[in-house]
Amino acid sequence: MLETTFTATTTTSTGTVATAAITINDYSANQEKQAALLAALQNLLGERGVLLDPIECEKYCKGARYGEGKAVAVLRPNSHEQVVELVRLCVDAQQALLMQGANTGLVAGSTPDTSASVFVVSLERLKQHIVIDAVNRSVEVDAGVCLQELNDALLPHGLFFPIDLAANPSIGGMIATNTGGAKLIKYGDVRQNLLGLRAVLLEPAGAVLDLQTALRKNNTGPDLKQLFVGSSGAFGIITRAVLQLHHLPKQTATALIVPRDQTAVLEILRIFERDCGEFLSAFEGISGTALQAVLRHIPDMQNPFAPEACPDYCILLELCSSASQDISGIVLDDLMMRMLEPLLDQEVQNAVIGRGKDLWRIRHSVSEALRHEGKMIAFDISMPRSALVEFRVEATTFLQCNYPWIKCMDFGHWADGGCHFNLVWPADAKMTFDASVVQELRQQIYDLVVHKYHGSFSAEHGVGPYNRDFYQRYTSDVAKHLAGKIQLLLDPQRLSGLTWFGGV
Amino acid sequence: MLETTFTATTTTSTGTVATAAITINDYSANQEKQAALLAALQNLLGERGVLLDPIECEKYCKGARYGEGKAVAVLRPNSHEQVVELVRLCVDAQQALLMQGANTGLVAGSTPDTSASVFVVSLERLKQHIVIDAVNRSVEVDAGVCLQELNDALLPHGLFFPIDLAANPSIGGMIATNTGGAKLIKYGDVRQNLLGLRAVLLEPAGAVLDLQTALRKNNTGPDLKQLFVGSSGAFGIITRAVLQLHHLPKQTATALIVPRDQTAVLEILRIFERDCGEFLSAFEGISGTALQAVLRHIPDMQNPFAPEACPDYCILLELCSSASQDISGIVLDDLMMRMLEPLLDQEVQNAVIGRGKDLWRIRHSVSEALRHEGKMIAFDISMPRSALVEFRVEATTFLQCNYPWIKCMDFGHWADGGCHFNLVWPADAKMTFDASVVQELRQQIYDLVVHKYHGSFSAEHGVGPYNRDFYQRYTSDVAKHLAGKIQLLLDPQRLSGLTWFGGV
Repeated sequence: MLETTFTATTTTSTGTVATAAITINDYSANQEKQAALLAALQNLLGERGVLLDPIECEKYCKGARYGEGKAVAVLRPNSHEQVVELVRLCVDAQQALLMQGANTGLVAGSTPDTSASVFVVSLERLKQHIVIDAVNRSVEVDAGVCLQELNDALLPHGLFFPIDLAANPSIGGMIATNTGGAKLIKYGDVRQNLLGLRAVLLEPAGAVLDLQTALRKNNTGPDLKQLFVGSSGAFGIITRAVLQLHHLPKQTATALIVPRDQTAVLEILRIFERDCGEFLSAFEGISGTALQAVLRHIPDMQNPFAPEACPDYCILLELCSSASQDISGIVLDDLMMRMLEPLLDQEVQNAVIGRGKDLWRIRHSVSEALRHEGKMIAFDISMPRSALVEFRVEATTFLQCNYPWIKCMDFGHWADGGCHFNLVWPADAKMTFDASVVQELRQQIYDLVVHKYHGSFSAEHGVGPYNRDFYQRYTSDVAKHLAGKIQLLLDPQRLSGLTWFGGV
Repeated sequence: MLETTFTATTTTSTGTVATAAITINDYSANQEKQAALLAALQNLLGERGVLLDPIECEKYCKGARYGEGKAVAVLRPNSHEQVVELVRLCVDAQQALLMQGANTGLVAGSTPDTSASVFVVSLERLKQHIVIDAVNRSVEVDAGVCLQELNDALLPHGLFFPIDLAANPSIGGMIATNTGGAKLIKYGDVRQNLLGLRAVLLEPAGAVLDLQTALRKNNTGPDLKQLFVGSSGAFGIITRAVLQLHHLPKQTATALIVPRDQTAVLEILRIFERDCGEFLSAFEGISGTALQAVLRHIPDMQNPFAPEACPDYCILLELCSSASQDISGIVLDDLMMRMLEPLLDQEVQNAVIGRGKDLWRIRHSVSEALRHEGKMIAFDISMPRSALVEFRVEATTFLQCNYPWIKCMDFGHWADGGCHFNLVWPADAKMTFDASVVQELRQQIYDLVVHKYHGSFSAEHGVGPYNRDFYQRYTSDVAKHLAGKIQLLLDPQRLSGLTWFGGV
């Protein structure tokens, strides 16, 4: 084994001069440039700012659901200024970068591929700045701050950032993915709550696009921050965000209801939106098969209906309000009763009211329960709400005819048209699991969603390497051409991210 | 006068072959190409599709508030396909185009300049398609449909598009301006209610970017439709939109309240958002001077307070809900009373409750009343809500010291940080009106807003020629550079619109 040591001297923008030495094993000529870059980066970021040890790098190289690869190094800047210098050095050296927040994404968008060629830029240490403006209901927050940390800081102000997720992503990652979650219908997605941001561009290298305004109305030209929302980190590195906040709910009413049939679901939704739409915060469908899986596999889980009864389908319905009962006179539990009473024996067959915590525990356990049933084939699709019933009928019939051994255990956010149309290939199926069959099935379902029902193949998880082929298949040439041209403007050397939006 | 007649034969994409003749007065050599283009356009659009008569063109050449210019012709396509062909012909001939909806904008963004070189493309005839999906709470609508026409069509469904404005703009124009209005705090702006659109691009000429989805969750790459929101028509021609709709309010409670002082305004807002934020639909400040002007100049207007009393400042507060009283049990009038009672003699000095129509009439008459007082100097600014009190104190003190003859008669949307900081140069002032003084004053106020209070020089009116210099002054070089590069991608010949986002 040949061992070579490089030393580098760097002058940062603040005038600091530092030198560092870096030792690379298995030295080969074309690694020289990269090793010199790493030495310069170590000067800039400090010893803990550049991880090279494969064991230390491991957790940055494996996706939460898909993807496992290798990175040359993991860079961990702890300030905006370090990000700026880092980008200058890496772009100058033509070094590919992969942005990473908390690495909780579900499409491998922040996971390196197996080529062992990229530097992961983890923003996990960029979390010094959380400045709350309670009067403006807004917060300035560093991109590396995680959702839970932010909400903990907001709690004393009675405010919160209302994107409701099972995971705990970073704010930067949430912007790059435009997360939606279970309560979009009341609070909107990340885009709708993003007032401003600051990003470091790759072209001109290290240029700072400072759009850190805390404004709800601002129409002074194209809104450039929109480019960074849902771009999977391909357009630059977000270092700070300004977010709109909401008052914490002071009361919540929850019900698990059994609709008469599928058609009744949309009618119940319509009635609730019409008559108490201001309070409707969740309208989550859960299939009977998914509910049964939860009851089978998750410990201490009780059937909210009669012990032996399990409905074909049920809906977790939530109303919430920031108004306290005593001041406003509004009592959501009473409202829920008053709303459901005339529906019982009409659109609604059965209802369990209250016990919100238990009911949400059922809903949040579905994904885990499904994994006990076999191999999960996850779909994160959406469509106009008006198409959901017909789609579910057509898709389940299609499955029964063509893939009879596969179980459908879906759940979904009916109010925003989102559907986690999750399938399970049972562990005990006669047909052994076959990835190529899954790939074909996946495309058949997506074809149905996109072509027939005008829906989306990725409602809230983004594109990433996992959905790259489907992006190519379902995006029009005009859109790909334009997206690719914009991406080349912002990243002419194609150094950033793994997702290429510009066609094949 | 020399008169020349051109004839042209055109084959459209549908295979129709047509010939038309066009006669141009004062023929000169360099007009030949333009005349041939006009003849081809007349073939395409029909006789009423190309207006050349200066008298007929007049109304398309004068802005609602600012701007008056000349167009060579006004093109009035009545289908998406005609827009596609029109763009192909004009881009091929390097003919400058100016997109126009209902021409109700306030920054001359849809008004030609005096160079008499552009073709106005009016979308007023593109209004065949209004397809409502009540279950999805969405509508597909042609860009030329006006807000009122849309809401008339939605009425039977109990739905509406909730952007609240005094004007009646076209949907395409509303997207190009990202209109906000008086009820943004409850319903959001156009961007937040835009689910999809279709646009005709200038590069490649006539290419159609079809993003007509009716999806609330869709994260499949960069959201290209965002480029067209607030771009003043500079990036292409929007021909159709898909909009999210809301249930019509079934009850409304209104109050005009007098705050103890300026600081109390934000405290009242905080309390209302905290305790009944779901219903808060307007929180509009009206200065005493503006109220007095309304009472002086608008016929049949009664002082809602005691006949002789006029407060220094008041707030028009509105709660609304789609819930009917009998079904939900919520009575907004009672809620308003219950909310105001503990505030009276604390943050609130006086309150008039009910009479919503009369109170809104006062609010909507402010601009008209101000014109009777003298020359209006209008500001459409915004800032973080937390800065509004301090700004108003500083700005009015500045005016008293430096421009003592100018009256401040502002009103504003406190809940979204918007402030129509309108000034009046009285007709009877000793100092005669001087446009250069106004220009200096304007920049001084904007400097204060943008540099000290981190606000916006154009909250909801957009850039347009009227704000072009301020865009240049207050936009960072990095932002201008990026915006300009994107604009050149979409319009390499700079044929579209009048606003250039790419720096000087």
